[in-house]
Amino acid sequence: MDNFEFVSPTRFIFGRGVENQAGVKLAERGAKKALLHYGGKSAIRSGLIDRVKASLDAAGVGYVELGGVRPNPEIGLVREGVALCKQQGVDWILAVGGGSVIDSAKGIALGAFYDGDVWDFFAEGKPAGEVLPIACVLTIPAAGSEASMNTVVSNDELQRKAGYGSDAIRPELAFMNPEITFTLPAYQTAAGATDMFAHLLERFFDETPAVPVTDNLNLSLMRTVRAEAPRVLAEPENYDARANIMWAGMLCHQGYAGCGRHEDWATHGLEHELSALNPAITHGAGLAVMFPAWMTYVHKENPERFAFYGREVFGLAPTGDADDDALNAIDATRSFFASLGMPTTLAELDVREDDIEKMIPTLQENQGGEFGSFKRLTMDDARAIYRLAL
Amino acid sequence: MDNFEFVSPTRFIFGRGVENQAGVKLAERGAKKALLHYGGKSAIRSGLIDRVKASLDAAGVGYVELGGVRPNPEIGLVREGVALCKQQGVDWILAVGGGSVIDSAKGIALGAFYDGDVWDFFAEGKPAGEVLPIACVLTIPAAGSEASMNTVVSNDELQRKAGYGSDAIRPELAFMNPEITFTLPAYQTAAGATDMFAHLLERFFDETPAVPVTDNLNLSLMRTVRAEAPRVLAEPENYDARANIMWAGMLCHQGYAGCGRHEDWATHGLEHELSALNPAITHGAGLAVMFPAWMTYVHKENPERFAFYGREVFGLAPTGDADDDALNAIDATRSFFASLGMPTTLAELDVREDDIEKMIPTLQENQGGEFGSFKRLTMDDARAIYRLAL
Repeated sequence: MDNFEFVSPTRFIFGRGVENQAGVKLAERGAKKALLHYGGKSAIRSGLIDRVKASLDAAGVGYVELGGVRPNPEIGLVREGVALCKQQGVDWILAVGGGSVIDSAKGIALGAFYDGDVWDFFAEGKPAGEVLPIACVLTIPAAGSEASMNTVVSNDELQRKAGYGSDAIRPELAFMNPEITFTLPAYQTAAGATDMFAHLLERFFDETPAVPVTDNLNLSLMRTVRAEAPRVLAEPENYDARANIMWAGMLCHQGYAGCGRHEDWATHGLEHELSALNPAITHGAGLAVMFPAWMTYVHKENPERFAFYGREVFGLAPTGDADDDALNAIDATRSFFASLGMPTTLAELDVREDDIEKMIPTLQENQGGEFGSFKRLTMDDARAIYRLAL
Repeated sequence: MDNFEFVSPTRFIFGRGVENQAGVKLAERGAKKALLHYGGKSAIRSGLIDRVKASLDAAGVGYVELGGVRPNPEIGLVREGVALCKQQGVDWILAVGGGSVIDSAKGIALGAFYDGDVWDFFAEGKPAGEVLPIACVLTIPAAGSEASMNTVVSNDELQRKAGYGSDAIRPELAFMNPEITFTLPAYQTAAGATDMFAHLLERFFDETPAVPVTDNLNLSLMRTVRAEAPRVLAEPENYDARANIMWAGMLCHQGYAGCGRHEDWATHGLEHELSALNPAITHGAGLAVMFPAWMTYVHKENPERFAFYGREVFGLAPTGDADDDALNAIDATRSFFASLGMPTTLAELDVREDDIEKMIPTLQENQGGEFGSFKRLTMDDARAIYRLAL
């Protein structure tokens, strides 16, 4: 078990109607003027933004609005948000949306008290200084950004997608109402569940031995996602199913599922290049393609670990051969993603063999050479994994 | 799934030697003078207190000392700590010990800015006002007080043991070095594991349906304690075993294992009266006796829940009869505790039938009439459960 330092200070307000508490909770914490940050039209059309505004009005918390966050949020809007916060004396950010909106809010929080260009944090991994506190009303359970220390932002000009992590940008408040997710399209629901599951896989497959407490917790969440994802797809308005998957999505990326382990994160690195290449590729869909390919490529490093995973998550019977067990576990993973309606090949995402070389330079730049932990990967390994995914 | 609000803001610093970071971490947070609070001689003899003092000295954090916390900490010493903090201008509490020391520290934190008698919080459930921030160096994995919102303090004069809960008294910092626990006696190790397991049982057995995400997480921790407790007893100096049980102990009472559920807590209520009757009774040992008795008394409310627990935690094969499955699960629980060296009857704790009536009046006072959630219990139910435990 590795030494670690861990904190997850987010306060979760979970259940029906909790978005209506946003104003009161912000006012209690001294908020005077919030940046109300959101994405496209669905949050407006559904009346959610109006409910949140009414809650802020009722509590006497002022706000300025910045909508228009796109999937795979872009640094341009983050810069706009930073400028707005500085001009308007914003003292809290209230993000209403899914991972993209919350990630964008985290970028703005980082830049709000910084004199240089906020991209510096992403380009150079610059340590966070003073940041604006963040609250969020979650609309898409997937990325776990409502409690995580991470944000991922794209830079279209540089054709780059870069991640940043710091405890300073963990949200202080997360309002989670499962009812808000009843109208999520099936594809987005499925991509969200895949993203959750991938957050667990990244933490489960590394070389750290002997952390059963964390493994058991991680596997329990895998079993939950495996059982609840089909249920939300079959019954989109089943409150309990939506509630379980929403809470699971937070737990999958909060960090407890990896405490004491090195963690891997190679597959997220490989996937980020896909959506840098084509921002229309949903993160979860990219992960559904890349994870089985990565698994196939690396499983010989420790087939017993894959066999253990297959038994515990998919109930696979041992064959007597760990390598066969590992391959069965990988097949089960691929089938699980496919059963949710996720793609299984890069072709389905319109990514072709000659796209691979377009991704390698930025992969190299983002990863700084070798990456991953279960197996250290070179750029040639990355090429091979992309090819396995074609 | 119930609505809930949840926060666990403790920062965990986990691994070898982390107690030596206490000074630096407190200094970073502006601490000028800490109350160094601890129990008996073992922390002094082992050199732990000296290491912590050296760390405070090196970081320029002053301190005043208050040792002598006993198991089942008493309000008298808490009052003494409160007075000391007020006189000396203490701005942080640093507890070095197990659950009793940390619980005592929580009491002092509650009273430090309060003009009345600190017992008011326990007697009346008075809401917490301003409190002193708490750091702890954990020496006994058991109570989970290093992250929990709870404290339990005895009042010898009133022959009462009372609990108090508030997010305000969750520690800000928890230093957890598994090596410190290598020398814990087997009985204390076993009682600690029993306490952990009981914290999960209290959360698992209630009437809330449909919270698989929380159930799975809870069951994963039960499996961890079940596997690791025998391992730490067999190999007291096995770092990984000690590390897994130490981290599990925190997770068992942090709160995630109950999110979205009502929780029960009747058995803790029943046990508290045992150690109010005789403070020499170790909390975990009392729980080992009381839990199987409570289970036996209430299982007919929902035998399927017990059967599920038996399958998932002890791998019991279904018999085709849920009631039999439930009784098998209860037997497995009793055997598990016994296998750790815990008592299985009140007689082993020197509690006799005529002691029962001595406990009922304070039980009634502490619980305010009916209590529990899986099955609402009257005082006659409590009598019957004590009798089952004789």
